[in-house]
Amino acid sequence: MSVEETLKPLFKEIETLKPNFIERLKTAVSIPSVSGDESLRPRVFEMADFLKRELTKLGAHDIQLRDLGIQPPPVNDPSLKLPPIVLARYGDDSSKKTVLVYGHYDVQPALKEDGWSTDPFTLKEIDGKLYGRGSTDDKGPVMGWLNAIEAHRQSGVEFPVNLVMCFEGMEESGSLGLEELIQKEAKKYFNGVDAVCISDNYWLGTKKPVLTYGLRGCNYYQIKVQGPGADLHSGVFGGIIHEPMTDLISVMGKLVDSKGKILIPGVSEMVAPVTDKEDEIYEKIEFDVDELNSAAGSDTAIYQDKKQILMHRWRFPSLSLHGIEGAFSGGGAKTVIPAKVTGKFSIRTVPDMDSAKLDKLVFKYIEEQFAKLKSPNTFKVELIHDGNYWISDPFNENFTAAKKATKLVWGVEPDLTREGGSIPITLTFQDELHTSVLLLPMGMGDDGAHSINEKLNTSNYVNGVKTLASYLHYYGAGEK
Amino acid sequence: MSVEETLKPLFKEIETLKPNFIERLKTAVSIPSVSGDESLRPRVFEMADFLKRELTKLGAHDIQLRDLGIQPPPVNDPSLKLPPIVLARYGDDSSKKTVLVYGHYDVQPALKEDGWSTDPFTLKEIDGKLYGRGSTDDKGPVMGWLNAIEAHRQSGVEFPVNLVMCFEGMEESGSLGLEELIQKEAKKYFNGVDAVCISDNYWLGTKKPVLTYGLRGCNYYQIKVQGPGADLHSGVFGGIIHEPMTDLISVMGKLVDSKGKILIPGVSEMVAPVTDKEDEIYEKIEFDVDELNSAAGSDTAIYQDKKQILMHRWRFPSLSLHGIEGAFSGGGAKTVIPAKVTGKFSIRTVPDMDSAKLDKLVFKYIEEQFAKLKSPNTFKVELIHDGNYWISDPFNENFTAAKKATKLVWGVEPDLTREGGSIPITLTFQDELHTSVLLLPMGMGDDGAHSINEKLNTSNYVNGVKTLASYLHYYGAGEK
Ligand SMILES: [Zn+2]
Ligand SMILES: [Zn+2]
Ligand SMILES: [Zn+2]
Ligand SMILES: [Zn+2]
Repeated sequence: MSVEETLKPLFKEIETLKPNFIERLKTAVSIPSVSGDESLRPRVFEMADFLKRELTKLGAHDIQLRDLGIQPPPVNDPSLKLPPIVLARYGDDSSKKTVLVYGHYDVQPALKEDGWSTDPFTLKEIDGKLYGRGSTDDKGPVMGWLNAIEAHRQSGVEFPVNLVMCFEGMEESGSLGLEELIQKEAKKYFNGVDAVCISDNYWLGTKKPVLTYGLRGCNYYQIKVQGPGADLHSGVFGGIIHEPMTDLISVMGKLVDSKGKILIPGVSEMVAPVTDKEDEIYEKIEFDVDELNSAAGSDTAIYQDKKQILMHRWRFPSLSLHGIEGAFSGGGAKTVIPAKVTGKFSIRTVPDMDSAKLDKLVFKYIEEQFAKLKSPNTFKVELIHDGNYWISDPFNENFTAAKKATKLVWGVEPDLTREGGSIPITLTFQDELHTSVLLLPMGMGDDGAHSINEKLNTSNYVNGVKTLASYLHYYGAGEK
Repeated sequence: MSVEETLKPLFKEIETLKPNFIERLKTAVSIPSVSGDESLRPRVFEMADFLKRELTKLGAHDIQLRDLGIQPPPVNDPSLKLPPIVLARYGDDSSKKTVLVYGHYDVQPALKEDGWSTDPFTLKEIDGKLYGRGSTDDKGPVMGWLNAIEAHRQSGVEFPVNLVMCFEGMEESGSLGLEELIQKEAKKYFNGVDAVCISDNYWLGTKKPVLTYGLRGCNYYQIKVQGPGADLHSGVFGGIIHEPMTDLISVMGKLVDSKGKILIPGVSEMVAPVTDKEDEIYEKIEFDVDELNSAAGSDTAIYQDKKQILMHRWRFPSLSLHGIEGAFSGGGAKTVIPAKVTGKFSIRTVPDMDSAKLDKLVFKYIEEQFAKLKSPNTFKVELIHDGNYWISDPFNENFTAAKKATKLVWGVEPDLTREGGSIPITLTFQDELHTSVLLLPMGMGDDGAHSINEKLNTSNYVNGVKTLASYLHYYGAGEK
């Protein structure tokens, strides 16, 4: 029997179960599992318990709520416990492939007073849209995996793979403890994983489903310039000492031009050339400058054509100046000469930029620029954070299965997208489990994850369950 | 009888009264009249009452505690009352000249925990230095005028002028209400004033007394650059929109070079040329680069020779970059693209810079620099505060009297100094009363006004009383 034939009764069952699925999401949304709010930490644990209950009911086994210990500082409550990582398996057939699925059960903060039209923790369906905090990020997709199991059980369709589930409760707060767990469990709980699927991002727009095969990395730097022993009054010292702000602003002004061009020599030379195959991918994607302008809330786009915009968001590096620590940052007029100022900027990295080589280029260039000033102020440039870019082959078995699933459910080929930001855990899964990672989003570009009135279209929720299930079937049908 | 003969018994009396003078200052310092701390406002009023009591005892007349009403926002307590301006007269002889003396009876905040070696509100004499908050700024000088009256009364030496006293209680908090009062009373309480003497600054160093004849002004500007509707994530938008920070830093980087040279065309052309007479003044002043380095707490002086340092502090303009409002200013790494950023800088002004003309040059230059960026972001540059420079003829009758007094008491000619900062009220007195204003300091450059362990040398306090009194005698002896 073909995969499509197998899926027919499953899809029928999914339609039947739609009210159950919405009810499951409603219960999940009703638990305000805000990881960033210490006072709500018990509710994050409650959400883990809810998952355990649901997984047990659905016949999952080896369910573990992994204790991650105490949350490291800065915290208000020094004995604050980290929420557990929920691990579970469904199916244990050595003749089948094994797919690890990742999601997170914590959410961003939300208050009705922030401007929500409905109570953020009461899932409400209006005009085919399910409003509520976590509906799309990431409780909808997490429930999606549970719903897929339920649909199989109810329809009697055989589950096509061994499923390993990994749901964390600290994603919105830095994924504390996750990387260590993946490293530790690579050869244990996650042993034998053939592919990883993460459903925690979004379509590019609202019309076409996507698969995501790349993320930019980020190297974050700071430039410290220090002069006087303490902040000085500009009336007394203005004009007679070398002011740290003058030096810092001068150096920061030489990093990037108004058009976004990085002025540090050697950086663009590290960027992988655009291939014909890649060029074709961009050609097909649905997107235009109006979508960018509306997302930015302004008419300040550097590029006007689709391909340039998307390439510069996804596959070219960028440099942003974020701010200055130690300078006057309040309202009004303060005549201070700041004694010690720290400029912050970051570079979004892409293939084939080598992070360590980039650091060297950055340090060398900035040191040269500072040397030109012949300033007696002390100066230091340093990397304070980095996360590598991630790129996958979007034509491999994992992506091909997801492509077929999307085509079957939505009737169109998905666009192949990247994202400009980083999801560091993607790379960790790929590197630690030595396997392909696929980003398979459920929601749309206008879902408003992290903002008010977060929503997930009901059709995306239901078709999402079908897509996730189909993906497992297509992937499971391939050679083991 | 010569002025010097007249002063002999007065000086003797001042030595005799030294314990009384110290006791008077001790009582004044014991009242924590911190104008910047709302919770201490009753103590500021208490200090005004103390002045009234002392002035009454000393035979002053027409003593008025001028009610200035409610303090305008921002305040925590919307019904917070401003402390009164204390007005008083001593002597009312139409054949004598009239001298207005100004001082302030409020002080900077001080806490033992800030690092004071002694309790800041208990005047303590150690090794010839009187430690305590307000000892030098400005309770010492204010008590100085009262002490001068007392010495005349005790010695029977005739008071040489009619004295008009104006003591305010909000100097450390913006002199709220003072300018209005001076304007209102110019032709009333202050009618007939021949000269003004302000004792609220310091010697340049610690070896030679000074008279101060100039203050720089200050024009404070801000540059607003606005792009996106809200702060954006650099992962998503970095490289595809014109970032306001890039534009702002670029423009701010073109205002001043690392050596303090203002890059705005036309500004230096407005500066009055150095005259031979002025050059001579600088030649004689005691100062060296070590004093600057020790005051700045660093070895970052632009100029190494005395004349260049002092001229650039006092009689040349300077431009300082103070900071940026709206950018990331915290610790750590935040990948934000700030949507709206406001850069702050100010220019210290000197003769013969015209404030309005300067504004035009600044606006034009910055607009040109921004235009070169061809950025679609919105942009605005504006003046948010200005105060004019002040300059006096240091060879006029008022200064000449002070010069003779200083020479008599200290045995040396005072250095003629300016200051780099502004004391806006100086100019107000000069303009409203159409008279010469003299800045006649009592304390030394190392007194630590506004910092911990503020002190006034006992010899400066006692010789200061002699100097103030002698000044009145020399000035009173001149043609009316
Ligand atoms: Zn998420
Ligand atoms: Zn999220
Ligand atoms: Zn003062
Ligand atoms: Zn002061």
